[in-house]
Amino acid sequence: MKLPDTVIRYAQETLRDLVALPSVSAERRALPETARRVKELLEELGLEAEIHPTPGAPVVYAEGGEGGPTVLFYNHYDVQPADPLELWESDPFTMTEREGHWYARGVSDDKGELTSRLAALRWLIDEHGKLPFRVKFVVEGEEEVGSPNLEAYVAQNRQRLQADAVIWEFGSVDTSGRPLVYCGLKGIVAVELRVRTAGYDLHSSLGAVVQNPIYRLAAALASLRDNDGKVLIEGFYDRVRPLSEAEAESLQTIPDESEQVAALYGVKGFLGGAEGVEFYRRLAAEPVVNVNGFHSGYGGPGSKTVLPAEAFAKLDFRLVPDQEPLEVVELLRAHLERHGFDDVEVITLEAGEHPARSDLGAPWVRQAVEALRETYGLEPVVHLSSGGSGPMYPFTHHLGAPVVSIGISYPGSRVHSPNENIRIADFERGVAAIKRALEKFAGL
Amino acid sequence: MKLPDTVIRYAQETLRDLVALPSVSAERRALPETARRVKELLEELGLEAEIHPTPGAPVVYAEGGEGGPTVLFYNHYDVQPADPLELWESDPFTMTEREGHWYARGVSDDKGELTSRLAALRWLIDEHGKLPFRVKFVVEGEEEVGSPNLEAYVAQNRQRLQADAVIWEFGSVDTSGRPLVYCGLKGIVAVELRVRTAGYDLHSSLGAVVQNPIYRLAAALASLRDNDGKVLIEGFYDRVRPLSEAEAESLQTIPDESEQVAALYGVKGFLGGAEGVEFYRRLAAEPVVNVNGFHSGYGGPGSKTVLPAEAFAKLDFRLVPDQEPLEVVELLRAHLERHGFDDVEVITLEAGEHPARSDLGAPWVRQAVEALRETYGLEPVVHLSSGGSGPMYPFTHHLGAPVVSIGISYPGSRVHSPNENIRIADFERGVAAIKRALEKFAGL
Repeated sequence: MKLPDTVIRYAQETLRDLVALPSVSAERRALPETARRVKELLEELGLEAEIHPTPGAPVVYAEGGEGGPTVLFYNHYDVQPADPLELWESDPFTMTEREGHWYARGVSDDKGELTSRLAALRWLIDEHGKLPFRVKFVVEGEEEVGSPNLEAYVAQNRQRLQADAVIWEFGSVDTSGRPLVYCGLKGIVAVELRVRTAGYDLHSSLGAVVQNPIYRLAAALASLRDNDGKVLIEGFYDRVRPLSEAEAESLQTIPDESEQVAALYGVKGFLGGAEGVEFYRRLAAEPVVNVNGFHSGYGGPGSKTVLPAEAFAKLDFRLVPDQEPLEVVELLRAHLERHGFDDVEVITLEAGEHPARSDLGAPWVRQAVEALRETYGLEPVVHLSSGGSGPMYPFTHHLGAPVVSIGISYPGSRVHSPNENIRIADFERGVAAIKRALEKFAGL
Repeated sequence: MKLPDTVIRYAQETLRDLVALPSVSAERRALPETARRVKELLEELGLEAEIHPTPGAPVVYAEGGEGGPTVLFYNHYDVQPADPLELWESDPFTMTEREGHWYARGVSDDKGELTSRLAALRWLIDEHGKLPFRVKFVVEGEEEVGSPNLEAYVAQNRQRLQADAVIWEFGSVDTSGRPLVYCGLKGIVAVELRVRTAGYDLHSSLGAVVQNPIYRLAAALASLRDNDGKVLIEGFYDRVRPLSEAEAESLQTIPDESEQVAALYGVKGFLGGAEGVEFYRRLAAEPVVNVNGFHSGYGGPGSKTVLPAEAFAKLDFRLVPDQEPLEVVELLRAHLERHGFDDVEVITLEAGEHPARSDLGAPWVRQAVEALRETYGLEPVVHLSSGGSGPMYPFTHHLGAPVVSIGISYPGSRVHSPNENIRIADFERGVAAIKRALEKFAGL
């Protein structure tokens, strides 16, 4: 399934153009011109494209093709900042080829992924003279800053965006080269906890009579989970949807690489001694509370006899269907109150993202898996959910469409880091796999 | 009991000279020349003075006088750093008089206190032509950095330092002007706790499988005490000496200012709802664990989805007789191990200081109290111990002498802070009180 030279050339030129636009959403750089370039690219494929304003960066929307089912691509044209610049071996906004890799910010996340889909469509058009099924594109410009306007956009354009299947923005092979399919993402909600016990920092000799905010916050955090990671907040699991038989079975098919992962991260073992199926079940389907940071008082060398007046911690909750982000914050508040921590203030840092999971048994999921199997000659690894979070819920919830996450990256892609790169061979296989999946979907 | 002009002038000139020497022990500034100046001052009073080297700053030792009992003065010639300089209203190393106050670093702690004792001796010599009892001085240069060499010095010079009574380096009136007497100090030992769970910081989505060091450290801290401050470390209270009847009674005589203290510190109430006798009992006689600082992971604005690899906290234990600082560290280690916290590393930051407490019934304590009552015309407030810590134990333990802490400062002296000051009227009364105490002690 070798790519025609025209498609390879098209892809290379397209990606080179896109990464040259420094569309860093955190810095609000080059967003309108990158949106315009994406619109032009979609129009060149014969699609009708529009730029839809949002309260933040605009969404590029496009649709086209005739007959058959409708597939919607979700991608984003914004990228992470390139810092630290000094660690890049070549300019982050100039696509550079070295030893079979392309290097640049966005070459994987997400301009490379977007380009692979454009290239697959270009190939299909070259073969059929037109697109023999319907496609829609939603390409946003704020994914790297938490997609604050995407859910409202999808909800408002619900009719227009109707689709039979969604291809998610990102995908990868694993370390052994097996193609991965993710059918869900965890939800997330982030909060800060604050305790203040005095008007100002005091001498620690007063600890005999004055409450210590670090102790209070530590005790509050310790009350939230047990040592194996089980969350002790009353009602936290109430909305958790049990795994279906198919979902539970899918965990059995994942090759166990937990030992290699432990070595990679420098950990002695996993929570609750998890390995194999349980390791992957936790990553995909176990909701958890994480503490991201805790700061109070003295942190310099030696000791300082201070009794701090205030302490704070930052937490994120990773959620699974059908947990509700803001409801979890309310459960946290109720838990703290019930356990006597009414001195612990809860501040919601972000509205959060809902968890999302597609039906593993949907024909679209099976078709995507078959396409990957045929293209890679290896058995794909199907994950019912990534451990990470992202704005998948607006699509599963408002459109009701099954979503698969497949793509052209690999574990060394250094997404969000210096020297972001993809292997050209992965890219070409990824384009072929997307094309094959679309063909299967359209019954071609 | 008005001070003679010669004594006032002597005191003012002496203190002005001493504070002009920037003897900041943390910065190792001007320590030898300040020691020499103290030696000269002691010699000018007719005492035999020597400079005794230690592994750190030298000790100035002096003795003199004839007949009667022996009183030992413990003082120090080093001071805290003057930072932040911009908050001083006059130069920290130039004694400045404003509205009945003297301002400078050390004007209270401890050059002002030392000067008050020299002035009292000068006054006695002026009256009697000589010192009609024995005095000894131990003036060290490392009190502000934890007196690391003092205990060894006292132990090695145990014979030479023998005394019937000790006057401690510091004293004060309370907010109502009542003179305070402290007869003890709490001990202290400082440790750091560290937890590392991974080789490097990870993405927080991995919190589903990787242990969180903040949770571990928070749970460990939460296990050390209960909400009222009771320490839950097994064996922690085993060596605590119950209060004698006289000690328990002394708590009843302290005027209850706990409500004013709460307002001053901006706290809503005290640990365990303490007030009155219980408030003062806790400050004087309750051993506690304090957390001075806790740091790990993200502390900036908003949220960051990081799973930190490491967390640390700094603690101090405030101890009472007969707890042993290093034994408490061993009890802490055993507690952590017993409760499954064998991943929490314990690092002892300082060797610590033993608690010390003098016999409230010793004649010397009664004589000091009588002298204060006569001088101030107010009932002195006797505290069996300060809530703070200091190197009193070498004197009570190796010399077996009763110690009282009386002096010339007031609650607004801003010790260790910018604009350190004393009220000149307090200084003069303090000199008179020291003189009166010495006279009573010597039966004059």
